[in-house]
Amino acid sequence: MSENIIVMSSTLVSPIDPKNVFEKTIFNNDFLLHNQTALLLFHDYAKDLPIIDYHNHLPPDQIACNKKFTSITEVWLQYDHYKWRAMRGLGVDEKYITGQATDEEKFMAWATCFPEMVRNPLFHWSQMELKKPFGINEYLNKYSGPTIYKKCNEQLQHDSFSTQGILHQFKVEMVGTTDDPCDDLVAHQKIREDNIGITVLPSFRPDKIFKIDNRNLFLLYVEKLEIASGVKIHDIHSLLQALENRVNYFHDHGCRIADHGLSSMPPPSTLSTALEKEFENYLIADNSMLPFSQPDSFAGAVLMFLCSLYHKKGWVQQFHLGPLRDNNTRLLHLIGGDAGVDSIGDFSQAQSLSYFLNALDERGRLAKTILYNINPADNEVFATICGNFNGDTIKGKIQYGSGWWFLDQKDGIERQLNALSYMGTLSTFVGMITDSRSFLSYSRHEYFRRVLCNLIGDDMEKGLLPNDMKWMGTLVQNICYYNAKAYFNL
Amino acid sequence: MSENIIVMSSTLVSPIDPKNVFEKTIFNNDFLLHNQTALLLFHDYAKDLPIIDYHNHLPPDQIACNKKFTSITEVWLQYDHYKWRAMRGLGVDEKYITGQATDEEKFMAWATCFPEMVRNPLFHWSQMELKKPFGINEYLNKYSGPTIYKKCNEQLQHDSFSTQGILHQFKVEMVGTTDDPCDDLVAHQKIREDNIGITVLPSFRPDKIFKIDNRNLFLLYVEKLEIASGVKIHDIHSLLQALENRVNYFHDHGCRIADHGLSSMPPPSTLSTALEKEFENYLIADNSMLPFSQPDSFAGAVLMFLCSLYHKKGWVQQFHLGPLRDNNTRLLHLIGGDAGVDSIGDFSQAQSLSYFLNALDERGRLAKTILYNINPADNEVFATICGNFNGDTIKGKIQYGSGWWFLDQKDGIERQLNALSYMGTLSTFVGMITDSRSFLSYSRHEYFRRVLCNLIGDDMEKGLLPNDMKWMGTLVQNICYYNAKAYFNL
Amino acid sequence: MSENIIVMSSTLVSPIDPKNVFEKTIFNNDFLLHNQTALLLFHDYAKDLPIIDYHNHLPPDQIACNKKFTSITEVWLQYDHYKWRAMRGLGVDEKYITGQATDEEKFMAWATCFPEMVRNPLFHWSQMELKKPFGINEYLNKYSGPTIYKKCNEQLQHDSFSTQGILHQFKVEMVGTTDDPCDDLVAHQKIREDNIGITVLPSFRPDKIFKIDNRNLFLLYVEKLEIASGVKIHDIHSLLQALENRVNYFHDHGCRIADHGLSSMPPPSTLSTALEKEFENYLIADNSMLPFSQPDSFAGAVLMFLCSLYHKKGWVQQFHLGPLRDNNTRLLHLIGGDAGVDSIGDFSQAQSLSYFLNALDERGRLAKTILYNINPADNEVFATICGNFNGDTIKGKIQYGSGWWFLDQKDGIERQLNALSYMGTLSTFVGMITDSRSFLSYSRHEYFRRVLCNLIGDDMEKGLLPNDMKWMGTLVQNICYYNAKAYFNL
Repeated sequence: MSENIIVMSSTLVSPIDPKNVFEKTIFNNDFLLHNQTALLLFHDYAKDLPIIDYHNHLPPDQIACNKKFTSITEVWLQYDHYKWRAMRGLGVDEKYITGQATDEEKFMAWATCFPEMVRNPLFHWSQMELKKPFGINEYLNKYSGPTIYKKCNEQLQHDSFSTQGILHQFKVEMVGTTDDPCDDLVAHQKIREDNIGITVLPSFRPDKIFKIDNRNLFLLYVEKLEIASGVKIHDIHSLLQALENRVNYFHDHGCRIADHGLSSMPPPSTLSTALEKEFENYLIADNSMLPFSQPDSFAGAVLMFLCSLYHKKGWVQQFHLGPLRDNNTRLLHLIGGDAGVDSIGDFSQAQSLSYFLNALDERGRLAKTILYNINPADNEVFATICGNFNGDTIKGKIQYGSGWWFLDQKDGIERQLNALSYMGTLSTFVGMITDSRSFLSYSRHEYFRRVLCNLIGDDMEKGLLPNDMKWMGTLVQNICYYNAKAYFNL
Repeated sequence: MSENIIVMSSTLVSPIDPKNVFEKTIFNNDFLLHNQTALLLFHDYAKDLPIIDYHNHLPPDQIACNKKFTSITEVWLQYDHYKWRAMRGLGVDEKYITGQATDEEKFMAWATCFPEMVRNPLFHWSQMELKKPFGINEYLNKYSGPTIYKKCNEQLQHDSFSTQGILHQFKVEMVGTTDDPCDDLVAHQKIREDNIGITVLPSFRPDKIFKIDNRNLFLLYVEKLEIASGVKIHDIHSLLQALENRVNYFHDHGCRIADHGLSSMPPPSTLSTALEKEFENYLIADNSMLPFSQPDSFAGAVLMFLCSLYHKKGWVQQFHLGPLRDNNTRLLHLIGGDAGVDSIGDFSQAQSLSYFLNALDERGRLAKTILYNINPADNEVFATICGNFNGDTIKGKIQYGSGWWFLDQKDGIERQLNALSYMGTLSTFVGMITDSRSFLSYSRHEYFRRVLCNLIGDDMEKGLLPNDMKWMGTLVQNICYYNAKAYFNL
Repeated sequence: MSENIIVMSSTLVSPIDPKNVFEKTIFNNDFLLHNQTALLLFHDYAKDLPIIDYHNHLPPDQIACNKKFTSITEVWLQYDHYKWRAMRGLGVDEKYITGQATDEEKFMAWATCFPEMVRNPLFHWSQMELKKPFGINEYLNKYSGPTIYKKCNEQLQHDSFSTQGILHQFKVEMVGTTDDPCDDLVAHQKIREDNIGITVLPSFRPDKIFKIDNRNLFLLYVEKLEIASGVKIHDIHSLLQALENRVNYFHDHGCRIADHGLSSMPPPSTLSTALEKEFENYLIADNSMLPFSQPDSFAGAVLMFLCSLYHKKGWVQQFHLGPLRDNNTRLLHLIGGDAGVDSIGDFSQAQSLSYFLNALDERGRLAKTILYNINPADNEVFATICGNFNGDTIKGKIQYGSGWWFLDQKDGIERQLNALSYMGTLSTFVGMITDSRSFLSYSRHEYFRRVLCNLIGDDMEKGLLPNDMKWMGTLVQNICYYNAKAYFNL
């Protein structure tokens, strides 16, 4: 493997000076903490709290079998579409990203790119992940790459680097995975039986049932749902019955959280004869079938039904709104979904979101709710919509969720915290999640806590907040841990 | 009344340490002033200027009768939907917010919530209001609450705490109230006759005539307008005549300002035979009536007529654009409008606003105009649209108005000042308004002046602005007082 | 000429103190550089690099004839709609802006306004332009105005102040002009033959062929295109052939860059029989003709064709998206386009932009692309859409372009750099352009470099970036010069 994996425009000055290869990194005790008060808040109040990661995409089977990883490439690069995307932008051939190259070649491609990643959150995240759990404290680049590759791979063979080992290293107390309604949850069952010292709970995410536009995929999913639920689905009522069966099944397996990924909220529809009739016909296999004429009404009616169920069961419901997914058809066909070709959408959100939540509130069926927003231009819209639907004497009932996806970095986190503070009540915030597929992403909780402490400390030093460590320290601790513990009844 | 008014999630750590109950607050001379130049600008140039509050929602009858308040709850909590909203988010039962609880119970509910409000603008505003005019310089909480309640109530019985007394304490020179066209303005008449030393002028806000969608309410309002104007309204021409009569009446009673609250601007319609015919039929009471088919055309035509009148009379017209109001039907029915269930909308604004202003400009009928924006994502759109319609050798003819509603806080004010600076001309800005229902909100002018001085001082110290106190001090004084005095011909 | 050119509201305090007339300005070595590291980065790495200004609106004929300017008014005010707009907002009569006043009167009108421009980018830009190349180091105002006017006019007669002289003073290495497809490029030919030591290349900007809505203007343009291309245009195929001829002609004359100005991207249409038929009829002169029914489909089909050509030729394509132009009909009729009555639009961008780029990518016809955004609320949308379409092992293939138009100032530049950093890869950025009609605008490259160095230096001092001057200095140099050199194969 040569250095020219990365096809760079030829006249570019090389950004790496060999003398700096083994330089100590910036990831010290005071990383992200730019004032003395912030240092105290982080080290005395935030740092040592356990982690409640109530929403992520960790594979439960890998936790159940306490998997060990063969290489840092497997645990760090294999499913990380953030890194893929970055490498494509640096001109790396797809072979070294998602293609046939070896694990070592792929790692070295990333290492070679890495010095170019400065100011992108991947620069901070990756070095933090190398530091903890791997203890690497030098910059990753094509010179340090081979040694780092070796060191990491060695450590990955230790018990403390199994999936459960890593979770324990990070003091993770609760893991909320994301699961399809058809999932049998056997992995979760095994985890519970094994008493691994970490609470791992499923979340109910029925996104596929809303994709009625693609009839073939929809019908395949309906079949899967029939098998999982034991209900023959021949009309919308049996569909809803099947979903309810799965909600009950999930509830019995410890699930208390639902999740939905949508461009924007559908209208809060109720069932109509026309809709029921059309759906009934749509289910009958016939290739001459027209597209479903009212996909939004269908989505709205199914979602209203599900949200009412969540409320009845005492669950928390989450809505992730706004991305524009799978933009690149070429890479979608080559790699599949989650190929790193998604972006921030600019859908209209306010009215549809308000109408839907109001329809639930009016009927007395609005569960605890967390709203995640992907477009920072809409932060204030989301933060103020939450404030309209609090009630039932539940503290922080409607949550404006933490910075999501592209916003899961210093600037995005600060903007979410600020919008929430200025438009709502920061003190009730249930805090950070990784929302990640990777067991190494847990340093993001440290990252968040540092950013939060820096913000609060800065305000205290500027006289914008009371200079009262106990008061502000409690605020920080509630956001980092205790609010989530209470909100999710853990 | 027990401490558990506030139903908090049980495991939450208590955020208040008794030892801090009587701690001195952060609201000192240098509050919000983070550099030496800012301190000089505020204390030498801005602080002592009188206040021109050209747009608010103070009740003129309470000024006319020089009302005294029975309790701090009445003057501070009874109409403050910001505080209601915050308390709901903290899990307080509606009884203690807008319900049957006593004044003292409601005050204590707020006091108990208060330490949780850190970083929300209510934290700064409320403590500033306790400091001036009440002289309270300790943090409000459940421990200090009873004493503060007593102290404030005692002071409210003094003459200097009557409505006029409070206005004089704050050096308010001009108050622009917001009035319905059907109002008889007798309170304003009495105020003028009493020579109270404060100029109190009505503003003309005919929002109700645009709500043609709700036919019953619309017809009731038309009846009211018939009585006020002495014009029988049987078609659109008599409607416009009735409105013109009221404009004239308001003008004769000192009104020089109009105001409109809209989601977005309607099209600059002209009357058509179809529209006239439909309106004529719509006025005839008949419950089988269909909804008005072109509400936007109706709104556009009426608004074009009114704006032309404002121009002819030499008035200033204001447009408040973008909120999504009354989102929670449950609370709307329980409490009515202004229940604290409004939020920031994401309506499209640029084209409709541009078309409307252009239509007036083309006809030579564009009055001085102030545009208020509620969504900070649109700040730059608003700031640049203003720049397209200046003319008539009027300095700052089209104004991008001060941070409004949710944006009436440090971050929102700074973002408005910055967008205005970078996209327009800060020096012509007519400055701050309270836009408030409360006589205690006048500390927001001090808040604004501090934020402004801090921004200018910071730029001076960084070498982004000339380090010239006279030049910059004059800039600050013009924005805080003299520009508004000139713009409104006071 | 009297001082009251500017009709100011009478009670305004005069903002200028005579004692400050000759004060030294803030435009020193450390202007915009707020930390020691930034100073080093700028002075040791960025300052002395040549300028590649790959997109602007300089008139090639003025370069070809090495024009000298008769007065500072001609070179500085005559085409600067930013200044016009500012003067209108300050109440200046149009006579002194674009009307019949003398050059000296116009200059003095601007000088009188100037102290009011603080915090607007014009304040920084104008003083920087007076400093370099004119060596003026005092504030412009009505007192200093006459002397500055004289000094600048004298210097403009020197050879180093001809068009080529100014470009050489600023070390401009490459100039990318913006040219209509019908242009004969003789000025470019002469420049090349004269070996002036600066590479001046045309860009292909066929905006007029997309304006099918205005039939009369469209047909006039088609006639012009027929003459330029030698192709009789009687249907869409001959239209495309004519455009291809002009692309070839431009290519032969050194053009390697295309540019398009659009509200938002059209759909990636293909030709249909209906579209072809309608277009054929539309070309036949007949005043009873209806408006073109599918202007977007036409635009999409023509643009897909052109973009495929650009890809085949190895060009870079640019898209400038989002403004709302010519908002003021009165001034449009009085002055014409570019009258200073444009603003930031709030068009929906994400889906249309994504679909168009994807359609090209799918067909293997996506050229190197630069996307410019005018609404800062959409920064993150643009920054993330770029990341979906990188490929072909081209480093930084899809670029999120530098802060454009209203965003071409400190705040706008910082926000673009930040969005690009947090959502993409800053290190591949091809950097700043003037996008200007004025030969004096080259100080904006210095302005950009200072802002960039300040940002990087600040991050280094805060420990957010490695404190490694070589690494970060190289990053800065690549963005300021080397990336563009490589990207455009210069």
